[in-house]
Amino acid sequence: MEFIKGVKQKETMELSEVSSKDYAGKTIRMEGTVHTIRDMGEVAFVILRRADGLVQCVFEEGKTDFDLSLLKEESAIRVTGVVSAEERAPHGFELRLTAIEVLSQPAEVLPIAISKWKLKTSLETKLALRPITLRNPMERAKFRIQEGIVRGFRDFLHLQKFTEIRTPKIVARGAEGGSNVFKLDYFNKKAELGQSPQFYKQTMVGVYDRVFEVAPVFRAEKHNTTRHINEYTSMDFEMGYIDSFVEIMEMETGMLQYTFDLLLKEYAPELKMLKVQLPDVSNIPMVRFDQAKELVSEKYNRKIRNPYDLEPEEEVLIGRYFKEECGSDFVFVTHYPSKKRPFYAMDDPADERFTLSFDLLFKGLEITTGGQRIHDYDTIVKKMESRGMNPEDISTYLMIFRYGMPPHGGLGIGLERLTMRLLDEANIRETTLFPRDVTRLEP
Amino acid sequence: MEFIKGVKQKETMELSEVSSKDYAGKTIRMEGTVHTIRDMGEVAFVILRRADGLVQCVFEEGKTDFDLSLLKEESAIRVTGVVSAEERAPHGFELRLTAIEVLSQPAEVLPIAISKWKLKTSLETKLALRPITLRNPMERAKFRIQEGIVRGFRDFLHLQKFTEIRTPKIVARGAEGGSNVFKLDYFNKKAELGQSPQFYKQTMVGVYDRVFEVAPVFRAEKHNTTRHINEYTSMDFEMGYIDSFVEIMEMETGMLQYTFDLLLKEYAPELKMLKVQLPDVSNIPMVRFDQAKELVSEKYNRKIRNPYDLEPEEEVLIGRYFKEECGSDFVFVTHYPSKKRPFYAMDDPADERFTLSFDLLFKGLEITTGGQRIHDYDTIVKKMESRGMNPEDISTYLMIFRYGMPPHGGLGIGLERLTMRLLDEANIRETTLFPRDVTRLEP
Repeated sequence: MEFIKGVKQKETMELSEVSSKDYAGKTIRMEGTVHTIRDMGEVAFVILRRADGLVQCVFEEGKTDFDLSLLKEESAIRVTGVVSAEERAPHGFELRLTAIEVLSQPAEVLPIAISKWKLKTSLETKLALRPITLRNPMERAKFRIQEGIVRGFRDFLHLQKFTEIRTPKIVARGAEGGSNVFKLDYFNKKAELGQSPQFYKQTMVGVYDRVFEVAPVFRAEKHNTTRHINEYTSMDFEMGYIDSFVEIMEMETGMLQYTFDLLLKEYAPELKMLKVQLPDVSNIPMVRFDQAKELVSEKYNRKIRNPYDLEPEEEVLIGRYFKEECGSDFVFVTHYPSKKRPFYAMDDPADERFTLSFDLLFKGLEITTGGQRIHDYDTIVKKMESRGMNPEDISTYLMIFRYGMPPHGGLGIGLERLTMRLLDEANIRETTLFPRDVTRLEP
Repeated sequence: MEFIKGVKQKETMELSEVSSKDYAGKTIRMEGTVHTIRDMGEVAFVILRRADGLVQCVFEEGKTDFDLSLLKEESAIRVTGVVSAEERAPHGFELRLTAIEVLSQPAEVLPIAISKWKLKTSLETKLALRPITLRNPMERAKFRIQEGIVRGFRDFLHLQKFTEIRTPKIVARGAEGGSNVFKLDYFNKKAELGQSPQFYKQTMVGVYDRVFEVAPVFRAEKHNTTRHINEYTSMDFEMGYIDSFVEIMEMETGMLQYTFDLLLKEYAPELKMLKVQLPDVSNIPMVRFDQAKELVSEKYNRKIRNPYDLEPEEEVLIGRYFKEECGSDFVFVTHYPSKKRPFYAMDDPADERFTLSFDLLFKGLEITTGGQRIHDYDTIVKKMESRGMNPEDISTYLMIFRYGMPPHGGLGIGLERLTMRLLDEANIRETTLFPRDVTRLEP
């Protein structure tokens, strides 16, 4: 009988093994894809693309019995070669080839030069050819950093005793959403795609006190802007036993501090490649919604048109104000008007026109919405009724308040927006692997 | 100006702090929900439910100025008390209360006694009242273990240099699925919910060599069985530069070894509570599909009705066979017939009626499907055509082969099924937080 016993050590080497040890003069094997070939006549440089970086391989006429003309860009190969220190090569070494084995060949030549350092093409083309353009080192570095952000979020919350949950994305119609939902037929029942795990994560606070989820959410909004997509990743957390909604902002700040430290430690090559300066998050300023409007109105000589709403240009100016006044790329705007927040938001007992809620702006863009939630059954029912909502429509959600919930609150962070601002990209599609927007359903 | 600086130390204590240090005789504060109250006259035991466990609090008449009759089950409270060693109490101590502060009160009495050790109710009721029944310690322990499985999967693959990806769940209609897809209207385009991240994860092998994703998948199957749900969590990975599809099984075995070690280390209380015996995964037997059928046919005296299909009862018997013959709860069944596998599966060059693929059975239930994929453009186009498929329908997927892909393969694991078998549950709904099935769209 045959058995599988676990992972075997591979004969081929990782880049980090070679660069961290003294391998000069030794023969090693490596796998990768031919990123580019520079033929200089008697010698050719074959750049191997691997997940962990680029490797410069030197092909010298007569040193291998391989016919270089058989090698194509995007061929997957396994090479054997002697490690030679070379300061000008990536990672400080090159591989003087003694053998090449072709593992697979492309059928056609690439329609776009992905081996260019920076892809010089329109966003439209980049997205249409996404499966290929992502192979460009700068393009793929963006999503490594995005991976790091998610790891930071999860690892930090795990240390803070949060439990990770997985809630359904197909939900009964009419739960929270208005017109901006994707509708579907679910075995002859009316269903929709979840716009947020809001009800479920609150439910799970009753179970685990502190919970988080990183998962897709869906919004059928028709805007075609640089900061909206129709399917995005929401990083959500919700925590019980809070004394104040300030604790939620403290948790988010702690998470950002932890995450940026993790990026510095484990994603340094990607940060360097994309020239990312991590912002200082040791202190994030906090300002009331109404005060923020006034500050901006005074400083930038701008009339307040609607005291209960924040226009995108005002967000940008608030971001600018706190950058100029205290050097911060981030600012918490608190106490949003009750009218602008969902029914489950807790009103401020000091002034019920406002809520115990906040947005976090990053360089003038909202990347987080959060706040304290109502936890008392009668209060939430009354608030629903005052808005003309029918509590019976969401009785399974209201069940948690009926039978008791601790004071709690939480937030949702748009992963692609956070990445976009961190990388100073002008369009959210640049930091979405396969974006879904009004015109885009493929690839 | 006010600033948020990060997470502040809370004044209240965690259970692990109290049980790990010598706190006897000291006064501490704790928060939690009233799980149950046992009033014995002059003394009452108030059991506090917290994410980290239950705490026995002793309420003695006259020791606090609190009126016990105000306290209800499911009230959220903050207590002050003196730690007293007590072997019979959970975690070896009890809290002799000196003060109680009520943070919130339920509106009604629970419709079901969740403080019972084991919920004695039908699955139907359990699911209908899911937001509440999950508060039962045994119920919630299941999903802590599920969290641990996902952490194990991710952490192991991270160590193995996999990159985590996030791929879209709304996809163009007709990509892979047949009739078992949920259809939706996407801005007047025909879309469906992804049944698997298959095409995207293969695409990303061209970018990062090794990738994984843990995300929801959707199947509109109408079966109402104990092992099917319509939205589940798929743990997927895909790896490039493989020499053989055996490497994929080795990676999965390594992952299971790592994950069970993690559960032992970090989820011991939950394993103990649910009396889970972690299976031995140091060696997982492997058997060909056709051989497995013969072995079972001989040993259990069962006729082979269809040599190209595996019936559920046969799966159960294969599981039984390898348990009896080599004591393993797991078995890899390899070389499934080509007809039963999708077009992208790589046929066995030695016998093209079969594929270089496998299922992993756990106690007779398929929890994983995986295998090597075709990586050559002409081969995949030819195979599609031989099946009457039109390559143009999925040209963005085929793009990756056209421009070159390394040899690769991967797998998908059903998280809820794996959890179900690990916990010896009879129904997959027991290990799904909020299950979606043919009749169930709420809660």
